[in-house]
Amino acid sequence: MAELEDLSTPDLRKFHEQCASNFEAFRERAITIDMTRGKPSTAQLDQSNALLRLPENLDYHLADGSDARNYGGSVQGLPEARKLFTGLLGAPADQIIVANNSSLAVMHDCIAYALLKGVPGGNAPWRGSNKAAFLCPVPGYDRHFAICEEYGIDMIPVEMTGSGPDMDEVERLVASREVKGMWCVPKYSNPSGDTYDDETVRRLGAMKAGAPDFRLFWDNAYALHKLSDKRADILNILEVCEQAGTSDRAFVFGSTSKITFGGGGLGLFSSSKANVSWLTAAMKKRSIGPDKLNQLRHVRYLKDAAGLDRLMEGHREIIAPKFRAVDAVFNAHLEGTGTASWNRPEGGYFISVNVKDGCAKRVVALANQAGVSLVPAGATFPYGVDPRDRNLRVAPTCPELAELAPASEGIALSILLAVTEKLLSERN
Amino acid sequence: MAELEDLSTPDLRKFHEQCASNFEAFRERAITIDMTRGKPSTAQLDQSNALLRLPENLDYHLADGSDARNYGGSVQGLPEARKLFTGLLGAPADQIIVANNSSLAVMHDCIAYALLKGVPGGNAPWRGSNKAAFLCPVPGYDRHFAICEEYGIDMIPVEMTGSGPDMDEVERLVASREVKGMWCVPKYSNPSGDTYDDETVRRLGAMKAGAPDFRLFWDNAYALHKLSDKRADILNILEVCEQAGTSDRAFVFGSTSKITFGGGGLGLFSSSKANVSWLTAAMKKRSIGPDKLNQLRHVRYLKDAAGLDRLMEGHREIIAPKFRAVDAVFNAHLEGTGTASWNRPEGGYFISVNVKDGCAKRVVALANQAGVSLVPAGATFPYGVDPRDRNLRVAPTCPELAELAPASEGIALSILLAVTEKLLSERN
Repeated sequence: MAELEDLSTPDLRKFHEQCASNFEAFRERAITIDMTRGKPSTAQLDQSNALLRLPENLDYHLADGSDARNYGGSVQGLPEARKLFTGLLGAPADQIIVANNSSLAVMHDCIAYALLKGVPGGNAPWRGSNKAAFLCPVPGYDRHFAICEEYGIDMIPVEMTGSGPDMDEVERLVASREVKGMWCVPKYSNPSGDTYDDETVRRLGAMKAGAPDFRLFWDNAYALHKLSDKRADILNILEVCEQAGTSDRAFVFGSTSKITFGGGGLGLFSSSKANVSWLTAAMKKRSIGPDKLNQLRHVRYLKDAAGLDRLMEGHREIIAPKFRAVDAVFNAHLEGTGTASWNRPEGGYFISVNVKDGCAKRVVALANQAGVSLVPAGATFPYGVDPRDRNLRVAPTCPELAELAPASEGIALSILLAVTEKLLSERN
Repeated sequence: MAELEDLSTPDLRKFHEQCASNFEAFRERAITIDMTRGKPSTAQLDQSNALLRLPENLDYHLADGSDARNYGGSVQGLPEARKLFTGLLGAPADQIIVANNSSLAVMHDCIAYALLKGVPGGNAPWRGSNKAAFLCPVPGYDRHFAICEEYGIDMIPVEMTGSGPDMDEVERLVASREVKGMWCVPKYSNPSGDTYDDETVRRLGAMKAGAPDFRLFWDNAYALHKLSDKRADILNILEVCEQAGTSDRAFVFGSTSKITFGGGGLGLFSSSKANVSWLTAAMKKRSIGPDKLNQLRHVRYLKDAAGLDRLMEGHREIIAPKFRAVDAVFNAHLEGTGTASWNRPEGGYFISVNVKDGCAKRVVALANQAGVSLVPAGATFPYGVDPRDRNLRVAPTCPELAELAPASEGIALSILLAVTEKLLSERN
């Protein structure tokens, strides 16, 4: 099919009428499918049901003999839990913190402590006389941006290139003393699917930051979440920074929320010794320690890196067909129309769709009318504003496989209808 | 026996030599007992072992049909968990937040959010141009004081009277605009055992605060933790404030760490609707939600207020004899000597001992030498400094009953030795 922009106005009008009719027919099917958030599906959760029975046989003792049911031990988390995640986090166990169920909470707290107290290498709390700003690769994760917005941290968007953020732009912007941090989802990025290539990671480690206390917020949320046979490798940011003489630059975050249970996983952190000491000291004021029993459950269930890999292979088998199903429907309806482009991610939880500029909000509204819930357009940008109003984040993991063809069709029909409306309005 | 101060110097010297000899004999027994922290004992933890098997039979669904293993639901916590704790917290379920395993963390976060953003009724973040200060009844809980110290909040000590803090002093001090908060452990206070009487609670609710955004940090950590047959009743601070026209004044905290598991309990919060909305909004930026599975475990195990009461009765049967054992030994060694006074608490986790001024540090050092670990002297005061160096916090719950007679003897002998040393040095 020709690109719609190339159609004559009568042909375009005819096509638009067909789109409207298809959309109406779809709407009459009255389906209801939620594609808003990157949630694991029931089948994925079922894989970790063994966790619900652990610890078994009243064996609640840690390796050091202490009782996981009681207070005590380090706020850094169970030594055996820290050991379990050394591979995922790329750091030795003494440079790892295993926290409660939310890695977002650890990110939040790093920012809150930085604002209130400052970080190693800084000479004042971030919340001093000057403005603080974060670089925000876009599209990105709405909950990252919401933390910055909450605390009045300016957000400066940087475009993604397909292999990470535009590094020329990042290097230019980071020279400002006001830029204190940068959000990075380095692998299977949310939602663009970008995996940072080696040059990008090296430049992030080596670039000259204007603020002596600049931090990369390295949210490796999808470290193990491949969709193809091969897992992408990214350079170890802690090693890269160490070699570049910026050893305190990276705060690394991880999570088991999309490995075991979204409703009861573990938040993970690794960094330089100085940063780990800093965060541990701050955490000690906040709490006597994390939920040790849930850490013990994870240790007993996952056992080691091989156990993690086996589990993630099971996830892949469940969700990779879902991503293929969405792609096939988009292909059938949208390929060659020039209405939208989308990624075929090698990992992660999202498909990122760029529709014609100025159409994303309308697509979301139409899809909602058609029973397919999408996250509000703009959510993947700072302040919820997509300057080109074009990006959609599609989350295929949670619905059943059989739901994804109709859900994707609903999205595709909404895209076609919104874009043809827009094209026609532009010709008036 | 006569009070030691009344002895002639030769008699005192003789008594001191006897104390030194008794202390040496005790030290040679080479016992090791930890009396530092208020930890539940193994027998107490065993009472809640059913939690380790929950949820059973893969029944991980909440009352609303949703899957506790997955993301979703309110950051406020499970509706059924909030319902469970209405009695403990003295508020309806919609004015309750059930959080992760640490109530201290909720207190910390209230202060962090207040510093960064301000609280309802305030016109600026606490961390503005002025100093912020907290009233701190003493002796009090070291971890409360540590949060204030961490963030540079001035701490103003107020003496406890036996039925709560000295309210004349509180009313005088709270008139200052800089006083933003006050720590209160209103029932079986840590460590003095004070339970706030009705007049105290009413005056706290009604007093005129200089700061419009003043808050009572009402840490009702021992709400259900009676040691005698009868549970002390305190007035419901939320109702008292409501009636006094200060409905947003109290942040109420609770915890199951000393009900179920110190290493895997639940932190609790209740307050006015405005405060709950404020905290919920802040928590939403930090995390998608709490560990739902642990909340579900608690709901299934504790069931209702009667279930909580039954469990607490079991705790009482285990720990009340321990408090009596300590008291009996102190009585035998110290009664009538004028060296120390201590409380016989009706609830809570501590015995508070006041020794002769200037002797507490020495007692702790001697007790440590004798194999009985006590929390550092001064820990129960702001900045770790007891101006009279007299208060000791004794935690009898964790050691086995049979250990408490020797442990208490070690403490008593340390007190006698330290005080006689001091008395003799004063006569030189």
